[in-house]
Amino acid sequence: MPVKSFAKHSYRSILKWGDPAQTNEPSKRLIEYLKEHMAVSDEDIRTPHLPGLDEVSLDRPTTLSKKDISALEKIVGAENIELSDYERLRHSMGYSYYDVIMLRKQADVPLVDAVVYPRDEDDVVAIVKFCDKRRIPLIPFGGRSSVSRGLEPIHGGISLDLTRHMKRIKNVNETNKSVTVEPGIFGPEYEEYLNNYKTPLAPGGYSNGHFPQSFEYSTVGGWVVTCGAGGLSTGYGKIEDMVLGLRFVTPKGIMEIKDYPRTATGPDLRRIVAGSEGAFGVLTEVTLKIWQFRPENRSYFSFLFKNMDDGVRALREIMQGEFGLPHMLRLSDPEETSIALMIEGINGGVIDKFFARLGYVDGRRCLLMGSTEGDKDAGRLIKKKSKAIGRKYGGFSLGSIAVKGWHKHRYADPYLRENLMDMKVMTDTIETATTWDNLPSLWAEVRKVVKARPHSICMCHASHSYENGTMLYFIFISRIIPGDEVHDYLDYHSDILNAIAANGGSPSHHHGVGRMMAPWLENFTGKANMDLLRAIKKHLDPKNIMNPGGTIALDYSGEKNKAFRAD
Amino acid sequence: MPVKSFAKHSYRSILKWGDPAQTNEPSKRLIEYLKEHMAVSDEDIRTPHLPGLDEVSLDRPTTLSKKDISALEKIVGAENIELSDYERLRHSMGYSYYDVIMLRKQADVPLVDAVVYPRDEDDVVAIVKFCDKRRIPLIPFGGRSSVSRGLEPIHGGISLDLTRHMKRIKNVNETNKSVTVEPGIFGPEYEEYLNNYKTPLAPGGYSNGHFPQSFEYSTVGGWVVTCGAGGLSTGYGKIEDMVLGLRFVTPKGIMEIKDYPRTATGPDLRRIVAGSEGAFGVLTEVTLKIWQFRPENRSYFSFLFKNMDDGVRALREIMQGEFGLPHMLRLSDPEETSIALMIEGINGGVIDKFFARLGYVDGRRCLLMGSTEGDKDAGRLIKKKSKAIGRKYGGFSLGSIAVKGWHKHRYADPYLRENLMDMKVMTDTIETATTWDNLPSLWAEVRKVVKARPHSICMCHASHSYENGTMLYFIFISRIIPGDEVHDYLDYHSDILNAIAANGGSPSHHHGVGRMMAPWLENFTGKANMDLLRAIKKHLDPKNIMNPGGTIALDYSGEKNKAFRAD
Repeated sequence: MPVKSFAKHSYRSILKWGDPAQTNEPSKRLIEYLKEHMAVSDEDIRTPHLPGLDEVSLDRPTTLSKKDISALEKIVGAENIELSDYERLRHSMGYSYYDVIMLRKQADVPLVDAVVYPRDEDDVVAIVKFCDKRRIPLIPFGGRSSVSRGLEPIHGGISLDLTRHMKRIKNVNETNKSVTVEPGIFGPEYEEYLNNYKTPLAPGGYSNGHFPQSFEYSTVGGWVVTCGAGGLSTGYGKIEDMVLGLRFVTPKGIMEIKDYPRTATGPDLRRIVAGSEGAFGVLTEVTLKIWQFRPENRSYFSFLFKNMDDGVRALREIMQGEFGLPHMLRLSDPEETSIALMIEGINGGVIDKFFARLGYVDGRRCLLMGSTEGDKDAGRLIKKKSKAIGRKYGGFSLGSIAVKGWHKHRYADPYLRENLMDMKVMTDTIETATTWDNLPSLWAEVRKVVKARPHSICMCHASHSYENGTMLYFIFISRIIPGDEVHDYLDYHSDILNAIAANGGSPSHHHGVGRMMAPWLENFTGKANMDLLRAIKKHLDPKNIMNPGGTIALDYSGEKNKAFRAD
Repeated sequence: MPVKSFAKHSYRSILKWGDPAQTNEPSKRLIEYLKEHMAVSDEDIRTPHLPGLDEVSLDRPTTLSKKDISALEKIVGAENIELSDYERLRHSMGYSYYDVIMLRKQADVPLVDAVVYPRDEDDVVAIVKFCDKRRIPLIPFGGRSSVSRGLEPIHGGISLDLTRHMKRIKNVNETNKSVTVEPGIFGPEYEEYLNNYKTPLAPGGYSNGHFPQSFEYSTVGGWVVTCGAGGLSTGYGKIEDMVLGLRFVTPKGIMEIKDYPRTATGPDLRRIVAGSEGAFGVLTEVTLKIWQFRPENRSYFSFLFKNMDDGVRALREIMQGEFGLPHMLRLSDPEETSIALMIEGINGGVIDKFFARLGYVDGRRCLLMGSTEGDKDAGRLIKKKSKAIGRKYGGFSLGSIAVKGWHKHRYADPYLRENLMDMKVMTDTIETATTWDNLPSLWAEVRKVVKARPHSICMCHASHSYENGTMLYFIFISRIIPGDEVHDYLDYHSDILNAIAANGGSPSHHHGVGRMMAPWLENFTGKANMDLLRAIKKHLDPKNIMNPGGTIALDYSGEKNKAFRAD
């Protein structure tokens, strides 16, 4: 049976995604499917594998000296420093599959020496200065939703947790349609504030437009420094497209970029901060675009296509149509479509047979879902034109039900992972960006690698598209091989990323690079470009105190991801 | 009388804008206006002031050694090296007012030592290597439409003219809706090629979407490295928004950025190349977005508002409407509106009286012009919604005539300058970006400075807008004071830029920084950011050979623009 309760300070409490009280148990249908297709046994279901139920109790005191701690206390106050084993471990881990398996194994992992909660930018400046002087690693910390080993404190140091104090909304500027906010605020608090900011200019309030799957447990600052995307980014743009201004504390001083619209005043350094993943400095304030909040105007459409090729053509033509963009537009490949319809109980039933007779056959058919929001008339036009394109490529219109369901449940999927892992089922994701002309071969080759592993599911969807290309989000589900779960996973993950690299995919579209994708970055980015990034790092952070140990490959020099293995 | 003919190798042939055969003589009405308001005399009109009619003949041989020249010949062939006085001077000058006045005075100016025409990227690599080894300055050269002293060869060196050979269109990728092109191609050749690229996917061909006023005499590479904007950029975006991929040769090696859509793979270095103005390296290839070319769908609208405030409110509300953007949207301030209507013969006539009676009074009323293109339905919706907003703010709809005229004549205005300068009338422009909330004070304060000079016209329009702000394009027309024309201009220009800086405007929106705006850059950008740009420069160009001498303030250390005066 899945684990239903656990101690407050257990490993489980750290590895479990999201709300401690919330779970997402696999449905009967899914369990049947896993039994049939993945050889999950009753015993697997009965006995949770590596549940991580022990309480955290480490014999690893902080390596900071009393003098250092007292210096930090002078800056932020003793109440804003935390040295407990539990909080230090919690601040050393994200939610990558690797992190989760290490926690399940209750393994020894690199640990931060202290958690510090700065109250404001002045505190951040003082802490950066102190750490620079004392050469103590400093790792900015937000929602810890990282799935890229972005927080791993290879060299120990201080976790700078921005979520306790630095979560103020400093200004809503309706004239400029922008908001200035501190980085430590979580998605829901931020969005709710904007939704409730009702004025004559925006009777329904505002919206921030950024809704990653981690929305509830990620922060504005985390979004910006990792170049995040959300479910509606096809319409609203990725977070880096929304950044108007910012303040960024580096060991070399404060970089301030004011919220000017486009200028021609030399290179744009906003894009140096976005994507810096803690390795250059600490974001202390950001000014972002906002939109009118008009949920009543949300409108949905969806299509079933006979095959992947038709679906991709429709997706591409909508993106290149020059009539505006749907806010959400998501094409599932045949395997993902099949599993989605299986879970809904459609496969094998009457509807299935009806579709099959029309040529929409399970295993080949593909689901496209879309939604528009914001201005009603523009949304109506975009939907109308998107639907015309869907029909042009033989799409069977499925109306709004599936899409409404996606909107409603989009934050629930991550909860499923713990329950599946309890049953010895590995589930993880890798996302990659590519150009349209390269999509078919990339998709096919990555699938080959995943499917070469026995009992593996490889689901894929394109949920963020652009005029010149799209993102493929692969969800791979395989069996956990008990024993050396860590290396088994790392080898598998490595094989998939190698296939992506060999077939023209980027190592990340919106999960960031962290230490996980770092070994693939230089080949992707090119040596001259990496050398420039390293020169920027060297300038801003000459003593390499900012999130050191390989994030975005800045001080990584080993072979493919071996350096970051726990052995 | 304006100068109508001049020798082929005269100073005049260098300072004159555009097609040698084309001119734009001030109309009778404009001449009457200049006589009345700017004390232009018949003598001023009769006798061209500093016409620059002498042939270029300098006693300044190249300072390159025979050995250096022979090394260059080995790289590109003797036929691709030019040492004549005329070509060296022509390649040392842009079209800033300062450049023009120096040429009119036939003054001694910094001169390049040779013009070299690379045949391909390999040539560029070899030349960069050679110049780096020999510490010879290297200045990339495109259409020379710079109005920011971006080409001024303070330390001599080589002008790398990319327009002779490196103007190939390497690939049109219809699947990715992109084009890969060399930097030396001029606007019209590029656009014509795309317009004629008719296929089933684009029966009417494609368009590049970038139409600066210098379109006919500027190059793709110049657009990118200066962050240019064009008349339709409100819809299509600035050129840096269109850059998908690029190749960039630096003394440190070739930076290649592939044409991926958005990724989350660390900082985005495209924005380090865009805006680098020749100071980091040489762009050798760029992949850009393209659009369907559907001129038959172009549609126009325009409004007269009672005052600037109403016009700005309408402009802002259209930009923030979330229903799509007009491709062109341009608000003229009262003085520009007045002069435009004066030139059309409207002021003082029946129509003027009709407008005045309705409350649209000369000196307060403002003209807004807009156009949409591309997809017909989206264009229709955007126009309809824009017009509704125009009416909401009391706009009097003027239909399409004025806007059609703008589209037709938009490349002609620069031709007027020579004829005005012949009459001792200085005409120049400065453009600045600012947020909406800051617009009114910036506009008022800059006007004050211009109007403080006797006999001065200060026209202003906002022609590129964004959700959070807009650009103010000031056209200032004053009397030339014979004698020390250069310092008189520099002081005046300096006063205007100081007013912009003091009132929250950027030193440039799309003209770039060059050496002209460089002295204002550090205050605008901030010291920490400038230090980072200098670190990037130092890494990519350690010997400071790339366009040295102060471009984008990278090796500028003097006081406000004194360092770049010719004295």
